[in-house]
Amino acid sequence: MTYCLAIKVMEGLVFASDSRSNAGVDYVSVYSKMHSFVVPGQRSFVLLTAGNLATTQAVVNLIHRDVDNPKAKHGLYKAKYLHDAAHYVGELSVEVQERHAEALKQSGNSPEASFILGGQIKGRAPNIYRIYPEGNCITASPETPYLQIGESKYGKPILDRLVGPAMSLEDAARCALVSIDSTIRSNVSVGPPVEVMIYRNDLLAPGHHLTLKLNSPLYTAIQKHWGDGIKSAFRKLPRFDWETAAPKGRSRR
Amino acid sequence: MTYCLAIKVMEGLVFASDSRSNAGVDYVSVYSKMHSFVVPGQRSFVLLTAGNLATTQAVVNLIHRDVDNPKAKHGLYKAKYLHDAAHYVGELSVEVQERHAEALKQSGNSPEASFILGGQIKGRAPNIYRIYPEGNCITASPETPYLQIGESKYGKPILDRLVGPAMSLEDAARCALVSIDSTIRSNVSVGPPVEVMIYRNDLLAPGHHLTLKLNSPLYTAIQKHWGDGIKSAFRKLPRFDWETAAPKGRSRR
Repeated sequence: MTYCLAIKVMEGLVFASDSRSNAGVDYVSVYSKMHSFVVPGQRSFVLLTAGNLATTQAVVNLIHRDVDNPKAKHGLYKAKYLHDAAHYVGELSVEVQERHAEALKQSGNSPEASFILGGQIKGRAPNIYRIYPEGNCITASPETPYLQIGESKYGKPILDRLVGPAMSLEDAARCALVSIDSTIRSNVSVGPPVEVMIYRNDLLAPGHHLTLKLNSPLYTAIQKHWGDGIKSAFRKLPRFDWETAAPKGRSRR
Repeated sequence: MTYCLAIKVMEGLVFASDSRSNAGVDYVSVYSKMHSFVVPGQRSFVLLTAGNLATTQAVVNLIHRDVDNPKAKHGLYKAKYLHDAAHYVGELSVEVQERHAEALKQSGNSPEASFILGGQIKGRAPNIYRIYPEGNCITASPETPYLQIGESKYGKPILDRLVGPAMSLEDAARCALVSIDSTIRSNVSVGPPVEVMIYRNDLLAPGHHLTLKLNSPLYTAIQKHWGDGIKSAFRKLPRFDWETAAPKGRSRR
């Protein structure tokens, strides 16, 4: 499993991903799911991947081949709009999936993969797209300023409570970290290291990239502060009416 | 969809359920998913239901028939152990599902249902069981003191962070309310009113039952305090190292 997300705020874009890959619970490995494609001063993309690892690796491979081939008809560096780039990734994904679909079906597996593509092309606004296994895609909106792929449910409530387009890039990155940490705690198939990329509007270069291991000081500090903050919020919740008459020293965790 | 959960703490048991039922997004209705079966002084059960509404209603109906029939071989009031009672509910569930399984399969639907059965039989310890659609069941443990059915992922992280066997019944009930509120915010197929039942060990009578509508003062107070607490916890998260040099007045939500 996997959990990746991207947040679009007025200042720019934030991308975050876990790094656990598994084929069953007895085969767990570590792979980065964050891929950066940049032409400095011209365009900067981040691709997040989820789903069948063979599919996502093949898609990333094909993107690199097109990038390296000046004669390629399509590619991340040829797309005029970010939407076209997302459409291109969707087409590659469908193409790769079809190659092995029948064989995988027979073995009870799925070739499906999902992607988030975000970034900016010079002269245009930055944006993020979620690309479905079928190749189609959706973008974010001011009302829904984030996109998720993979194991998205555990980390969604905290985004729904906190994320808004006016928040700073750093706050958006902290939200993403808390969302991923909540998911890591509840689902063993999502795991560290956690990667974060912070892209400020019009940078047109690689964003600020962090790789956080479980024992890195920032990650443990965020975990501790968040855990303490949640417990403090919980202690402040209103009592039931019959509790107000409760004897002193009653255990309240 | 549905979200129900039960928490077992040293003081007793807490049950909580939402009340939204839907057949597609264009047919939404309200049904209680919490059913109480009590012989005062002898035994007290709570049954929470999720899944196909026709299945869960038929199972509840059959339980009532067995309860009312002094000649019935099995039933909630005849089981010697809570585990036997859970096994009995599982058998009824499988029996009901099989009746319409083929017809439902052809229309692309599922007869599946899940249950949580909890309570106490006089002279024995209280307990909670989760009953799978296949009829088998699991119980809680000191390390995993809660069970969930239905749309369980959104509300799980907060349980993983807060719930422990030593917490008070009221704290467990507040945890359950926050868990359901998080789910209601993230999934429109889970909705109010929220029911809570608090069963103190050896009560052997109906537990303390609350029905909270969205606009009930306690529910809105919990929502507000929790939302404020989360935002406060978020504001206290550590900064990235480059932020410490940031100019004053920087927007920090």
